[in-house]
Amino acid sequence: MHPAVSKLSLDEKLSLLTGDSFWSTASVAHAGVEGAVLTDGPHGVRLQSGSADHLGINDSHPATAFPTAAATGSTWDPALLEEMGEALGRESRALGVDVLLGPGVNIKRSPLCGRNFEYFSEDPLLAGALGAGWVRGIQSQGVGASLKHFAANNQETERMRVSAEVDERTLREIYLPAFERTVTDAQPATVMCSYNRINGTYASEHHWLLTEVLRDEWGYQGYVVSDWGAVSNPAAAVAAGLDLTMPAAGPRHAADVRAALESGALDESVVDIAVSRILTVHDRLREARGETQPVDVDAHHALARRIAAESAVLLANEGGVLPLSPAEGGAIAVVGAFAETPRYQGAGSSHIQPTRLDTALEAIRATASREVRFAAGFRLDGAEDEALRAEAVDLAAGAETVVLFLGLPDAEESEGFDRTHIDLPAVQRALVDAVLEVNANVVVVLSNGAVVALDGIAGRVPAILETWLGGQASGSATADILFGAVEPGGRLAETVPVRLADNPAHVNFPGTPKKVVYGERIYVGYRWYDRTEREVEYPFGFGLGYTTFALSDVAVSVADTAVAHAVVEVTVTNTGARAGAEVVQVYVGDVEASVDRPVRELKGFAKVRLAAGASERVRIELDERAFAFWGESGWTVEPGAFTVEVGTSSRDIAASAEIELAVPVPESTLDIESTIGDWQRHPKGAGVLESALAANGGASAAIFADPEISRMMESMPLRTVLGFGGDVDGTAAAEQLLAQV
Amino acid sequence: MHPAVSKLSLDEKLSLLTGDSFWSTASVAHAGVEGAVLTDGPHGVRLQSGSADHLGINDSHPATAFPTAAATGSTWDPALLEEMGEALGRESRALGVDVLLGPGVNIKRSPLCGRNFEYFSEDPLLAGALGAGWVRGIQSQGVGASLKHFAANNQETERMRVSAEVDERTLREIYLPAFERTVTDAQPATVMCSYNRINGTYASEHHWLLTEVLRDEWGYQGYVVSDWGAVSNPAAAVAAGLDLTMPAAGPRHAADVRAALESGALDESVVDIAVSRILTVHDRLREARGETQPVDVDAHHALARRIAAESAVLLANEGGVLPLSPAEGGAIAVVGAFAETPRYQGAGSSHIQPTRLDTALEAIRATASREVRFAAGFRLDGAEDEALRAEAVDLAAGAETVVLFLGLPDAEESEGFDRTHIDLPAVQRALVDAVLEVNANVVVVLSNGAVVALDGIAGRVPAILETWLGGQASGSATADILFGAVEPGGRLAETVPVRLADNPAHVNFPGTPKKVVYGERIYVGYRWYDRTEREVEYPFGFGLGYTTFALSDVAVSVADTAVAHAVVEVTVTNTGARAGAEVVQVYVGDVEASVDRPVRELKGFAKVRLAAGASERVRIELDERAFAFWGESGWTVEPGAFTVEVGTSSRDIAASAEIELAVPVPESTLDIESTIGDWQRHPKGAGVLESALAANGGASAAIFADPEISRMMESMPLRTVLGFGGDVDGTAAAEQLLAQV
Repeated sequence: MHPAVSKLSLDEKLSLLTGDSFWSTASVAHAGVEGAVLTDGPHGVRLQSGSADHLGINDSHPATAFPTAAATGSTWDPALLEEMGEALGRESRALGVDVLLGPGVNIKRSPLCGRNFEYFSEDPLLAGALGAGWVRGIQSQGVGASLKHFAANNQETERMRVSAEVDERTLREIYLPAFERTVTDAQPATVMCSYNRINGTYASEHHWLLTEVLRDEWGYQGYVVSDWGAVSNPAAAVAAGLDLTMPAAGPRHAADVRAALESGALDESVVDIAVSRILTVHDRLREARGETQPVDVDAHHALARRIAAESAVLLANEGGVLPLSPAEGGAIAVVGAFAETPRYQGAGSSHIQPTRLDTALEAIRATASREVRFAAGFRLDGAEDEALRAEAVDLAAGAETVVLFLGLPDAEESEGFDRTHIDLPAVQRALVDAVLEVNANVVVVLSNGAVVALDGIAGRVPAILETWLGGQASGSATADILFGAVEPGGRLAETVPVRLADNPAHVNFPGTPKKVVYGERIYVGYRWYDRTEREVEYPFGFGLGYTTFALSDVAVSVADTAVAHAVVEVTVTNTGARAGAEVVQVYVGDVEASVDRPVRELKGFAKVRLAAGASERVRIELDERAFAFWGESGWTVEPGAFTVEVGTSSRDIAASAEIELAVPVPESTLDIESTIGDWQRHPKGAGVLESALAANGGASAAIFADPEISRMMESMPLRTVLGFGGDVDGTAAAEQLLAQV
Repeated sequence: MHPAVSKLSLDEKLSLLTGDSFWSTASVAHAGVEGAVLTDGPHGVRLQSGSADHLGINDSHPATAFPTAAATGSTWDPALLEEMGEALGRESRALGVDVLLGPGVNIKRSPLCGRNFEYFSEDPLLAGALGAGWVRGIQSQGVGASLKHFAANNQETERMRVSAEVDERTLREIYLPAFERTVTDAQPATVMCSYNRINGTYASEHHWLLTEVLRDEWGYQGYVVSDWGAVSNPAAAVAAGLDLTMPAAGPRHAADVRAALESGALDESVVDIAVSRILTVHDRLREARGETQPVDVDAHHALARRIAAESAVLLANEGGVLPLSPAEGGAIAVVGAFAETPRYQGAGSSHIQPTRLDTALEAIRATASREVRFAAGFRLDGAEDEALRAEAVDLAAGAETVVLFLGLPDAEESEGFDRTHIDLPAVQRALVDAVLEVNANVVVVLSNGAVVALDGIAGRVPAILETWLGGQASGSATADILFGAVEPGGRLAETVPVRLADNPAHVNFPGTPKKVVYGERIYVGYRWYDRTEREVEYPFGFGLGYTTFALSDVAVSVADTAVAHAVVEVTVTNTGARAGAEVVQVYVGDVEASVDRPVRELKGFAKVRLAAGASERVRIELDERAFAFWGESGWTVEPGAFTVEVGTSSRDIAASAEIELAVPVPESTLDIESTIGDWQRHPKGAGVLESALAANGGASAAIFADPEISRMMESMPLRTVLGFGGDVDGTAAAEQLLAQV
């Protein structure tokens, strides 16, 4: 218990359970309690200038707008996220911020989710590894992270009252592991509960989630803060394990908790623990701090530029059209309003006032000594403008290369609402068609916070560079890549589907006003496309570089087959002419399991940087979880064969090995509902059943001798079979046999 | 209350709540209570000869084996099902059977379900119309039907303990309507509860299902009988509304109910009502009977033959290869073991001892004066036999036409287990390849209880005739069609997918041992393929005939747009050279709805028989339900536009009309969780909100003036918005505004 707790009156304690303003917690001077400042992230420090407005949306202090999570998810580089976290920590410190609200590790269930740009991936392992890196980075500066939005908050539609209807296995295997990994690896100072309900209960009131899973199972040491406005019933929230309600919730909060204390529904020790957690976290952050340093704005801008390049995914590069020569060749037509007016960050609570803003057009002009001309080509508001298009087509017709900047305008994706389609605006698609009529040498550069359909583009243009929402240095990073100063370092953290209708959540998103059924269960992202044998535009994990790599000599070793642990080794060789990076991905599949399992799941990865011609032996460990599914009694590894695939995307598998684990058979228990099949499969039950049938005489034996009838009976509970006919009490007879097992 | 109830002791009443044998209920002579015989259907009367064995699987008295429901579902002809029901009634009477266990109107959720052959369709409207016809027919003879398996019993795997996890809308729109229609249209004497659980509760103990929905809402008048062995907890079942537990459940049943009566958990009036329902139904059946007539076995065989032809679906007929000439042309090679050893019925409880059995080979030989030769081609047990294949290929090489009988052997599909794939056995697929190498003029005839994948067949052979499991006269009916004596009358009652992986339930079937998530919700069958824009091999509703039809002059009229009721009229013309039948199908789509809805849903159909050149104006009514979805407050029709499509399959739409319904806007109510969007859309709420915001002054107004922020706020509950900042108690303020609405 934090020592200040005993010095606080109940009123004072209650005052600490909610904010004293939109962005801060209260101080209690006599007890030495200092307030803390919590403010929006996670791609930059959004500290409101002046007083906070009613919804906390007003202008904020300038801060570096780093690439969004949609971008950084594609880096596959936890160490780079750690660097970014450190920089965010320094900026937070400089602005007096104690806790920066991020990272967001929710899973991209549907490409329509308006807040996908704040999330890393469709895969929980990747999202968790990146989230943990970010947290380690920021917390190294004595600034707290707030891991959000916990949990199953995968859409904006009705986000404040919708109930995510999702079974526990799906939660455990898909929607919780990124939180779990970040908590266990990096211990974020705070975890932010989401707005939505999970199976009918608000996240803010979800005891199982906030206490049993988060604290009891994962050993979480920090405090839980509500998303801003997520608490409906303060006393219920406190009872469930929510510590801090934000923003300032007014006198009703204290009154509600006090009433619960007075009625006995809530014990004051629960309040004490919540206060203690909050104060302890704030103290620890302060203790971890060195002296506050002035922020090197230029260095942070350069870091943002480097991360943006590491985030950009080169989807196509036919005939090596990229990189462009900065000096040689005819005119470059830069077409598309985004080249001049970049879309580099998302809308909503993460919106940053950047310290600087690079545009691709300026950066291209600064880099190239070739002729560079620009035409906007379309209006960002989507209104038809044939003159703009004609001007761009003219420009394209006379150019050697067209660099076409397309993307989603702000109005198309934001926190607070979801998209209803994944198409680029019609004016942009029309521009692509028109430009292609006059010039085939087109490089498309995309800026968008979540995937867009690429029909009409993929296969028609030689090069596509996906830059996501790449932060304030996105423009210069794009020029760096276009002209080959740096590699496009990104690999897809989410599948690009052929059509929206192919998406796993298509028939279930965003649900009725009050419920959304997670009907695809564990089959999210590539797990769905693989299981349903669906073609994709570009697979999860995919991305090209300017050099080429070969994976060879894959070896998978299991030291002791009785233990679910394997080591994958693979030689990665840069077979091209320049330095570059490849992401080696390891997928595991369970060949035969007692439950349905995905064809393959990402269980390890490594980003490997190599000089031209260089080789490295890469080692990736697979721990028990890499082989486990969430069964009726928790994480379960079954003995038998597993495939271990090593590749450069979920659909580019360079080598596959099969290993055999001889781990113990999970203990099965027979109960009164157990079927004939269960009995037959049970080590002791099989014998008991056989003896009983033998004693029962001819009829049963004859039935079991017939293979067709026997197969039909496999799924019949033993008590039903024994009770058929009415002369035997099936339940009593089954219980007698159970006693013998 | 049945008058005998007051004469019965408690012991006697309890003795009537379960069977007194495997297939019969008890008599109580002093009270005038006669026992009744219930036995398996629904495609023939399966009355066991001699004493019933332990599982009721022994041989039975000969009876006509009519086509299975997989076949009769394809007739789209409720009147024909009524004829079949009458015949089954006569056979039941002759054998002393009071209740025949059928029809099965469960929805074909997955093609893998081992019992799909006992079910009609993937569409609830079609299944319900056919089920009602069957019930009317059998009950016209004073024999009771038993509508089964109630409900959400859509797989055999773990059928006795699995819980179907399915939301209420999906139950109401997909899994219950066929039961509802059959109950309200035909009042089956009994309804049989299924083995499985629904959302955690056994169907046999499901008060909501057996009492609230079935009786209170649908007005069901008969009694509920358990599937054989479906009752685990007798007292709980009786309390839920289950009347009769079958088979004889022994003394434990009475003891359990008695204990509940003694503890007060159950009231004796509930027992009295159950007994009364059973006795009343049995009395009514007896009263409805005329004198028992001897069965005309030949007439029933002829009826079975006619139904089989009406069930057979001609999937392909390139170049008019069918019908074959009986007299002219070279040799016909009849290839495939099924021509000699027909697969004509399913395995499990519906297995009939037929009165006769026609084989296709004999029927073809009897019909054709051309040379007919036979080769088995493959072994039914699936074992490789190259000599058999070579013999068949030789035969095919020398023939003018090859009629190739393929299908699923008994071991591949049955009650009691599910398929794990939808492929034909490898030996058969190999035979197709081998035959096609020597002769392209191949007519494939299929016998299977549920769809099979047709890759390797569709598009490679000129003609495919799907005969399902066509009953004892299947062989002669096939010959009738092959030689053009009759039309192939069937239209697909289930989509033939390209691949199993395309199926809506693919990632969720058959679930874990104890739960199956109905994750695709309402998107079953063509509703899924349409919504997910998936290609299919053959669409729902599809089937060719030997003549051609045109649909023209489609008119959709709405007498009063304030009432959800429309009349569709269409002129159907037989444009070919011979008489035939077409199934006119009407699909409805909701253009804009407050919930997600299928692209199109079957809402009416008519099978139209016309002479060559003849025309008929067909009239199909669409009632309120045709436009309704299951909303939060029940069946809901929203005003606005609906598409009404008229066609000959779900993907052959001849004409589409859009109608506008001006039905009242469903009343919406605002509550404490209502969002800004809800308030803005509410007739009175919009004004109240506006005034409140105006009074609140500048800040809120400014926020709402920004379209992006305004859109983000649409899904925020008003109380959250009002409470933001902490100076206002949002809940109290929202409650004040609610009071003004």
